[in-house]
Amino acid sequence: MNIQSGFNTREHIYPYTFTRHKTQDSAWPPQVLWFTGLSAAGKSTIANGLNSVLIARGLKTAILDGDSLRTGLCRDLGFSEQDRDENVRRVAEVAALMTDAGLTVLVALISPTREARHYARSIIGNDRFVEVFVEVPLAVAEARDPKGLYRRARSVELAGFTGIDSPYEPPVCPELHLRSDQISVAGAVGLIDAWLRRVRAG
Amino acid sequence: MNIQSGFNTREHIYPYTFTRHKTQDSAWPPQVLWFTGLSAAGKSTIANGLNSVLIARGLKTAILDGDSLRTGLCRDLGFSEQDRDENVRRVAEVAALMTDAGLTVLVALISPTREARHYARSIIGNDRFVEVFVEVPLAVAEARDPKGLYRRARSVELAGFTGIDSPYEPPVCPELHLRSDQISVAGAVGLIDAWLRRVRAG
Repeated sequence: MNIQSGFNTREHIYPYTFTRHKTQDSAWPPQVLWFTGLSAAGKSTIANGLNSVLIARGLKTAILDGDSLRTGLCRDLGFSEQDRDENVRRVAEVAALMTDAGLTVLVALISPTREARHYARSIIGNDRFVEVFVEVPLAVAEARDPKGLYRRARSVELAGFTGIDSPYEPPVCPELHLRSDQISVAGAVGLIDAWLRRVRAG
Repeated sequence: MNIQSGFNTREHIYPYTFTRHKTQDSAWPPQVLWFTGLSAAGKSTIANGLNSVLIARGLKTAILDGDSLRTGLCRDLGFSEQDRDENVRRVAEVAALMTDAGLTVLVALISPTREARHYARSIIGNDRFVEVFVEVPLAVAEARDPKGLYRRARSVELAGFTGIDSPYEPPVCPELHLRSDQISVAGAVGLIDAWLRRVRAG
């Protein structure tokens, strides 16, 4: 950040008041499904499966995938604790903007710390934030290792890898909790969808 | 940015390949209308007016307003040249994500440099980027001065203010060019809408 001397950077911001339009055109209020969990837990796979179900229902959706965003919006960020928190913050801000615009947003992001996820929840709003904990035993994620990342983290090629030498803090009270080693992708999608229909349909 | 020693921060990014869905459900391809111009040129006002027209047509829209974003996604950024470029980059990335999701996006952002706007165009894609130059003589913007910012910039309370002690580079070849001191808001909205219907309707 670059602050010019004697110049309060926030001081001359006067947000324009835009005309409010009703963006919601279905019984489904726009919301954010926030998938958190270890690398290779199945977050993106389950989000992708759920996305098809939601689109078939007529919802407008967007997927915000941690890995993809790091090649775009968050390309200036690394994997230090501070940069990871900033990564989570930006994704949450974008998800909030998209929800404002009427989209149902699926976020697939390791988001390892409780604090950052809590901050994300506060940005998005508790009533439209659905935390989905995709749990898998570390040994299973390591055995899957579709990208060879765990192997490289173990051989110290990668530093600060979540689950190996960087902690993952499991959610204390997520809206949804799935064990991806004990349920199929279709099963996980079905569970989330059933929960949404029961709890979150307008 | 924080790069850990011996650890290529880009190296372990493997974007997941999500199922592609057709998000476009009208004859109107999702695109970005990028309003650039001096502070008080009328960017947000015209964007807001156009937004109502587009929504009435059944389009899903989102407004990304520079001032509003600086209280959220871009709150860590100041007004140095470098921070302004990063501001433009992030807005462009978010606009691209929203367009991918099927929204028509209206960006109201001073975005003073040609280089940053060109970069925004490259991120969003030339075929879905509409640069709208909202021109106004500096003297008129200063006379309007709805937020008292020009007065404060002249009295050196604000440093680096576009048009006063920080340059604005007019677009060389914008898709649309309006003079907001010679046309009403409704007139400007009508011109843009007519252009869209003629050139950009599917």
